[in-house]
Amino acid sequence: MASMAAASFAAPAAAAHRLRRRPPRLPLSTHLAPPAAARVRGGGRPGLRVRSALIEPDGGRLAELVVEEPLRRARARESLELPRVKLSRIDLEWVHVLSEGWASPLRGFMRESEFLQTLHFNALRLDDGSVVNMSVPIVLAVDDADRHRIGESRKVALFDADDNPVAILSDIEIYKHPKEERIARTWGTTASGLPYVEEAITNAGNWLIGGDLEVLEPIKYNDGLDRFRLSPAALREEFTRRNADAVFAFQLRNPVHNGHALLMTDTRRRLLEMGYKNPILLLHPLGGFTKADDVPLSWRMKQHEKVLEDGVLDPETTVVSIFPSPMHYAGPTEVQWHAKARINAGANFYIVGRDPAGMGHPLEKRDLYDADHGKKVLSMAPGLERLNILPFKVAAYDKTQGKMAFFDPSRPQDFLFISGTKMRTLAKNKENPPDGFMCPGGWEVLVDYYDSLAPADNGKVPEAVPA
Amino acid sequence: MASMAAASFAAPAAAAHRLRRRPPRLPLSTHLAPPAAARVRGGGRPGLRVRSALIEPDGGRLAELVVEEPLRRARARESLELPRVKLSRIDLEWVHVLSEGWASPLRGFMRESEFLQTLHFNALRLDDGSVVNMSVPIVLAVDDADRHRIGESRKVALFDADDNPVAILSDIEIYKHPKEERIARTWGTTASGLPYVEEAITNAGNWLIGGDLEVLEPIKYNDGLDRFRLSPAALREEFTRRNADAVFAFQLRNPVHNGHALLMTDTRRRLLEMGYKNPILLLHPLGGFTKADDVPLSWRMKQHEKVLEDGVLDPETTVVSIFPSPMHYAGPTEVQWHAKARINAGANFYIVGRDPAGMGHPLEKRDLYDADHGKKVLSMAPGLERLNILPFKVAAYDKTQGKMAFFDPSRPQDFLFISGTKMRTLAKNKENPPDGFMCPGGWEVLVDYYDSLAPADNGKVPEAVPA
Repeated sequence: MASMAAASFAAPAAAAHRLRRRPPRLPLSTHLAPPAAARVRGGGRPGLRVRSALIEPDGGRLAELVVEEPLRRARARESLELPRVKLSRIDLEWVHVLSEGWASPLRGFMRESEFLQTLHFNALRLDDGSVVNMSVPIVLAVDDADRHRIGESRKVALFDADDNPVAILSDIEIYKHPKEERIARTWGTTASGLPYVEEAITNAGNWLIGGDLEVLEPIKYNDGLDRFRLSPAALREEFTRRNADAVFAFQLRNPVHNGHALLMTDTRRRLLEMGYKNPILLLHPLGGFTKADDVPLSWRMKQHEKVLEDGVLDPETTVVSIFPSPMHYAGPTEVQWHAKARINAGANFYIVGRDPAGMGHPLEKRDLYDADHGKKVLSMAPGLERLNILPFKVAAYDKTQGKMAFFDPSRPQDFLFISGTKMRTLAKNKENPPDGFMCPGGWEVLVDYYDSLAPADNGKVPEAVPA
Repeated sequence: MASMAAASFAAPAAAAHRLRRRPPRLPLSTHLAPPAAARVRGGGRPGLRVRSALIEPDGGRLAELVVEEPLRRARARESLELPRVKLSRIDLEWVHVLSEGWASPLRGFMRESEFLQTLHFNALRLDDGSVVNMSVPIVLAVDDADRHRIGESRKVALFDADDNPVAILSDIEIYKHPKEERIARTWGTTASGLPYVEEAITNAGNWLIGGDLEVLEPIKYNDGLDRFRLSPAALREEFTRRNADAVFAFQLRNPVHNGHALLMTDTRRRLLEMGYKNPILLLHPLGGFTKADDVPLSWRMKQHEKVLEDGVLDPETTVVSIFPSPMHYAGPTEVQWHAKARINAGANFYIVGRDPAGMGHPLEKRDLYDADHGKKVLSMAPGLERLNILPFKVAAYDKTQGKMAFFDPSRPQDFLFISGTKMRTLAKNKENPPDGFMCPGGWEVLVDYYDSLAPADNGKVPEAVPA
């Protein structure tokens, strides 16, 4: 992974690092933040930060929940005295998400009123009457034994799998975990075989515990990828440093092919035409839980690196970073979460494609969601009015040009749709896709990935990688 | 049914009728509508109506969709030339609901954008950016044959079971009927055995047809109860005629016992204490589809009549009318619909009890919904901010007083909870409940109802009547 510090890739991480060590002089020269509008948070304190005129986070400010340095030791000591709740890997990912403010203004795992609003309305009403989007429940399950152990305590400590204290949850509320209803209202089905449900709900406790979260220190995974996990605050600093006057986010959990690249490049072109001077792309692969047949994060990051190295995307106008959320595969419900979290990271444009966050129905031979519902629901979602939704144009392989191009319905015979299954089969068999489908470096990574699987899997290759 | 024209009962129907024939002089003397605020719709036209200061309908005005008299003949002729869609009994009930503006500002069966907003957000965003509540899909299913027959037509005619034209649906949109997703998101379960689902969804067509509805003439059922089916406009006239300065609605689908009566009487007392001079109760039994083991509408109306005759409720401050909606039994989702429709009828207070619109889980030995979720969801629902939610206090039979009273948790041993099952068993066996549980006349009606069932049912008596 050390080799990933290529120019294009290292930029955001290094820049954020640089910012942290050496705050820029004020007023910051940027298209976004005219001197008069530049606001300083924390006055003359160390750790001084500049806020630009990027889109405001939901609720007006990022809910950053990591305990400030001087208090960490005391909180860590306190955590050892409290009733303990053990976190699963997915729970820890949610602690990470909450700690950095991706779910702002949420300040911890949901209490029942937030859980019910999420399930029924996909939105939370704030004290001032305004509404923010919140479509997936961010909840922590506990079982009867936990509940008994917690007793009348108003606080609990959250511990990771290695028994290290991670966070304190205060002013707690324990309420019933209505699993069937949660699943039905989040996924629109209760069919068995939903990956997140099987991983995180079916065998989880029958109670949910909500409260205010204080995280003892920044969440790290020590997998060589932590430096790509920029928080919303760090991303905002990076966009400001680059003088972004528009930020367009592209959520993905799959390898980037030239159709994606065409779309992203074309989006920048359209934004320039609209009068923006410096639109910046946030290429934002999801880094949390994914289903078994998705390409793992480390391989995807290698593949994305090649795509930037090969010049398919312009490193100057692209920030690659990891979005720490786990994946629900909840289609129109989840795409709202994907968009909302990016508002908190400073994005004011969101690219949405066909069947976002979708998958095949686990029991029936059809997609779980109507392919158009995601973008329709997103465009109507409460609390996302400030975000500009950019619907995805369909790209396919144009045989007459020998490259990926926007599908032209007047000459369908010229286009080849290369499905995920097709792509996977080719990579597995070390065959090449048509020239121009994906940059050669990126394709090699995919071939290597499937190569690495074969022995471990006794010849069984996981199912389809959606395009 | 002719005997139902008792003083207390006939009041609303007769009054509405009188109003229609003989418009009151302006300005109307009422606590609600000071002369300056009285607005006249339609200027000097016949059918002049007075609007009082009752709560505004959702969207600002009632969407009344019955074709005006001079145009009816032309529309009826037109309907005979259009592709036909046959309405089920429940479809017709929805036409009725839509035609009178209970679902204002909805002007017809939902198009896909309304359907999706209902499923995901329980609310519709209007063109001016404001939000109204809408929690249950009001949709019309058609099958492949219908769709083929409709072809490219922009209009269809809706016909009842007897092949009479009922309405025209214009500017139609046909879209997929995602049954599993609709059921999961509306009921929070996909368990088999949900009454509305089995009646109206499982065997319905795989397409939904939305559009603008024009109803050829007011919907009537000719069952002797039509005069109790007051439209929102007629109810508003009645409340204005009675000088109501607060209207509190009580939705019910069960016989009224003295616990209900206590609650309604107590609510009026509380409203008087709050400074209202003349709070009027809208006792509003649901008149559409109910499950097989609920007491049928005609018997419930007889029972309600006795309750007013026996003086348990005060006819002077009570309006009894029938709410034409079919019942979903969708708990926290449906209670929003029940409340929202009553805003359109002029109610600004809504009484909500334990487990509103709930039922037992069809497959598991538990209630389908948490008994407290209904009132919590209702109190947080988008678009219902204007409505005052009055949570139900629990009433039970107080053995020390020999009557229904509010449960006192300091002396639980003194209270007897008489469940629906218990009530049914007593009525079926012609036994009497404890004195003071229900007025004797009302109880007799129940006994008569179960008596009437026994022979037809070969001794099998339907399951529990919830209290």
